[in-house]
Amino acid sequence: MRPQDIIRKKRDREQLLPAEINFFIDGVTHGQIADYQISALLMAIYLNGMNDAEQQCLTEAMLQSGSILDFSSIAKPKADKHSTGGVGDKTSLVIAPLVAACGVCVPMISGRGLGHTGGTLDKLESIPGYRVGLSATEFKDILEQVGYAMAGQTAELAPADKKMYALRDATATVEAIPLIVASIISKKGAAGLEAMVIDVKVGSGAFMREEERARALAQALVKTGNSCGIRTRALLTDMNQPLGSAVGNSIEVKECIEILRGEFDPGAQPVLDLSLELSANMLVLAHVDASLEQAHERLRQVLESGKALERFRQNVAAQGGDPRVCDDPSGILPLVSESHKVESRRPGYITAVETTEIGHAVAALGGGRVRIEDKIDASVGFMSEVKIGDQVTAGQTLGMVYSRDESRALEAVRRIQAAYQIGDEFKEDLPTLIKEVVNE
Amino acid sequence: MRPQDIIRKKRDREQLLPAEINFFIDGVTHGQIADYQISALLMAIYLNGMNDAEQQCLTEAMLQSGSILDFSSIAKPKADKHSTGGVGDKTSLVIAPLVAACGVCVPMISGRGLGHTGGTLDKLESIPGYRVGLSATEFKDILEQVGYAMAGQTAELAPADKKMYALRDATATVEAIPLIVASIISKKGAAGLEAMVIDVKVGSGAFMREEERARALAQALVKTGNSCGIRTRALLTDMNQPLGSAVGNSIEVKECIEILRGEFDPGAQPVLDLSLELSANMLVLAHVDASLEQAHERLRQVLESGKALERFRQNVAAQGGDPRVCDDPSGILPLVSESHKVESRRPGYITAVETTEIGHAVAALGGGRVRIEDKIDASVGFMSEVKIGDQVTAGQTLGMVYSRDESRALEAVRRIQAAYQIGDEFKEDLPTLIKEVVNE
Repeated sequence: MRPQDIIRKKRDREQLLPAEINFFIDGVTHGQIADYQISALLMAIYLNGMNDAEQQCLTEAMLQSGSILDFSSIAKPKADKHSTGGVGDKTSLVIAPLVAACGVCVPMISGRGLGHTGGTLDKLESIPGYRVGLSATEFKDILEQVGYAMAGQTAELAPADKKMYALRDATATVEAIPLIVASIISKKGAAGLEAMVIDVKVGSGAFMREEERARALAQALVKTGNSCGIRTRALLTDMNQPLGSAVGNSIEVKECIEILRGEFDPGAQPVLDLSLELSANMLVLAHVDASLEQAHERLRQVLESGKALERFRQNVAAQGGDPRVCDDPSGILPLVSESHKVESRRPGYITAVETTEIGHAVAALGGGRVRIEDKIDASVGFMSEVKIGDQVTAGQTLGMVYSRDESRALEAVRRIQAAYQIGDEFKEDLPTLIKEVVNE
Repeated sequence: MRPQDIIRKKRDREQLLPAEINFFIDGVTHGQIADYQISALLMAIYLNGMNDAEQQCLTEAMLQSGSILDFSSIAKPKADKHSTGGVGDKTSLVIAPLVAACGVCVPMISGRGLGHTGGTLDKLESIPGYRVGLSATEFKDILEQVGYAMAGQTAELAPADKKMYALRDATATVEAIPLIVASIISKKGAAGLEAMVIDVKVGSGAFMREEERARALAQALVKTGNSCGIRTRALLTDMNQPLGSAVGNSIEVKECIEILRGEFDPGAQPVLDLSLELSANMLVLAHVDASLEQAHERLRQVLESGKALERFRQNVAAQGGDPRVCDDPSGILPLVSESHKVESRRPGYITAVETTEIGHAVAALGGGRVRIEDKIDASVGFMSEVKIGDQVTAGQTLGMVYSRDESRALEAVRRIQAAYQIGDEFKEDLPTLIKEVVNE
C-alpha cells in the first residue's frame, strides 16, 4: 500500500476502505507518511468529503492511535462537554464544577486559543499558579478528589489528531466536517468518556456561519460519537455575538466566578443559561437524571448552595492555583484598569455584530494567538455592554477595551466599533441562544 | 500574505491574484513555504482548476523562478518538441537530429522515465559514455557545434517546477492540467525557446486516456505557451499501443538509429511518420518553411542524404558517447540476446492493448523506474511484432521479452500477454496516429 494511492482514491471520490484508512493513520502516528502527503489527503477530504463508513473508520483509527485513559476505577459516570469554539465562550469553567457537584466525573481535555477564538486552558492559566500540564497520574488523582480536572491534549492521547490538527491550521483544511468530527471524537474517546454534549456554535463568531452547515456538523458528530460508543448529543447555539459580556482571559474567568457566586451582571445571563442547558443534557446522557427538568432542578441546587463554587475552588487548589480567586477575583486575577470606551457612532438599534472581528481585535491586543507559538497576555480584553436588539444613542458606550498599550487599545476600539452594525429599525428576529438539539 | 490564505482561496474556488501566485512560487523557490502547504495547494488546484489568467501567471512565475538560458548569440531559430509521455515514445532521438540538420537550434531539456513511461535521458545513456549532465557552457557549445544538445533539467532552470514536480508524484497530483501546463511551459520557456511543438499523447498508454481531456490539455498548452512568447502548436497523437516496436532503452535507441539509417522494420514506420510530422510542424513554427509540404520535403532530403544521421553521430561524440553506435548499434549498445516469446492465447484480431501495462512490465524488468531513485537496466525490453487490427493465430508470437533474469522475464511475458486483447471480429476503427492539430 502506498500513501499516494490512497490520496488518489480520495481525490477521485472513491470510498476509502478501512485497511487504507488504518494504514494512513498508522503512518501518520509513526511518522512514516510525509507531512506533504498528509496535507494532500486533508485537502482531498476537505473538497470531496467522507461518507459515514469512512468517517467512523477515520475517527476510530485516530482514537486508537495513542493511549486511552482508563478511569474505570472511578465509580461514577464519565461525561464531558465540547464546544466548536467562539468568542467569549467560557461555559467549560462553569459546567465542569456544576456537573462534578452533581456526581459526574468530568475529565476535560481542552485546547488553546487560536485565531479569533479563546481557549479554556489559556483562560484557566490567568489564575496565578494554575497548571494545566498535568501528568496522567495527577489528572486522575484530581479527577478522583474533585470530580473534574482540566488539562491539555498530551502526546499520548490521539497523537494522529495532534499531528493532523497542526497541519490543518497551516493548510486551510480546518473547517472540513469529516476532519472536525474525527478530531473531536477521537480526543474525547481517548479520554474514556461515556457521554458527551457538543456545543456546535453557529453565527458570525463561529467556524460555521450558516445554520445548515452547523447542523450537518452536529449530525455527523452525534452519529460518529454514538458509533464510537459515546452517548452523544449536540446543541446548535448562537454565536452571532460574544457569549456574555467578557472577551479575554482574566475577565472571562472573573465573569465565570461571578456566575458561580451568584453575583453577576445581566450581560452574563446567557453564559449561565447556556451552561445550565448543556449541563442538564450531560446529566441526562450520563443517566444521573431521567429528564432535563430533573437535571435543571439538581443544577439549581448545587449552584445556589455554593457546592459548584466549592468544586471550582477545590479544582483551582488541586491544580496549583490560588483558591482565593473565588472570593476576590479582581484582587487575584491580572486585570488591567486602563480602559478605553467603544462608542456608538450613531443612534439606532444593534442589528448585527461581526463577532469574529471582536475576537481578532482582542487577540491583537495580546489576548489571543495569531500564531500557535504566540504568548498570551491574560490581562487584556473587551467587556461588551450591549447586545443585538438594544437601542443606543450616538456616543453611547458599546463596551470597554482593556489594555495598557494605548495605541493597540485604540486600534481595538476602532475594529470593535466597526464590528457593531447599527441600523434604524429594530431587529425583529433576535438570535435564539439555543437553536436546536440534535439527537441523531 | 500567508500561504494558508492563498490555499484557502483556491480551496474556495476564488481566483488567485498575480501577487498571490508570485508570492507562493517565490516561497516555493526559496524554501520559505513548507512542503505540506505546497501539496495542499497542489491538491486544491487539482480539484478546483485554474482559469486562463491564473494559468498564465503560474507558468510565468515558475518560468522566472530560476535562470533563463540565453542562446541569442546563436543566429538560428530555437525550437523544441515535448511529449506528454508514452510507451515506446522515442521520437526525440529522431527529431532532434532531423530538425538540427534543417538549420534549427534545438536545446532539448528532457526527463527521466518514471512509472510506465520511458525517458529520453535514460535511453541516451544506454549509449556507452553518453553524458546528459552537461554544464551550461557545455550545453551551449554543443548546441553551437552540432545544432542540438540533450540534457536534463538543472537546479537553475525553473527550480519551482523541480520542487513541485517531486511533490506531485508523491501526492497524486501529477495529472492536473494547470500543473502539467505550468511545468512543461516553464521549463521550455527557461530554455529560451521561440517555437515549440507538443506531442499530447492520448490512449491506454498515456496520462490522458480520453481524447476530450487530452484536447483540453493541448489547448491549455498552446494558449499558455503562446502567452509566454513561445510560438506553440500541439498534436494529439495515438498512444493506444506502443509507438513502433521497441519498448526499453537500448532497443529504442537501436530502432531510432535504424530509422535514421533508413534500414528499419515495418513496425518502426509509425515512429518515422510521427517524427516527420512533429519535425515539419517545428520547421513551420520556426519560420524555416512556409508550409508543412515544404518542411516535409526538406526533412526527406536531410534524412535520405544521411545528414540527419550525421548530426546524431556528431551529438553522440560531443556528449561523450561512442559514435560507432551509428554504424553498428547491435555491437555497441548493451542488448540482451536471451529472449522469451509472448504468444497469443487464441486466434483472432488484436482489438486493444493495455499499453500502460506493457510499460509497467518493462519497468519491472529493470528497464524503468518504480521509484525516482531506482537504477535503469538499459539492456532489457520488449519488441512487439503485432499492432491493433492484426490477425493472429493461437500461439503466434505477439512479441519478444528481452531479459537475462528468467523469472522476471516470465512475469513480463505473462503481463504483456494479458495486455493484448484479442477478439473474434476485425476492429473497424483502427487508431489514427495523428488525430488532430491544435493551433489555439
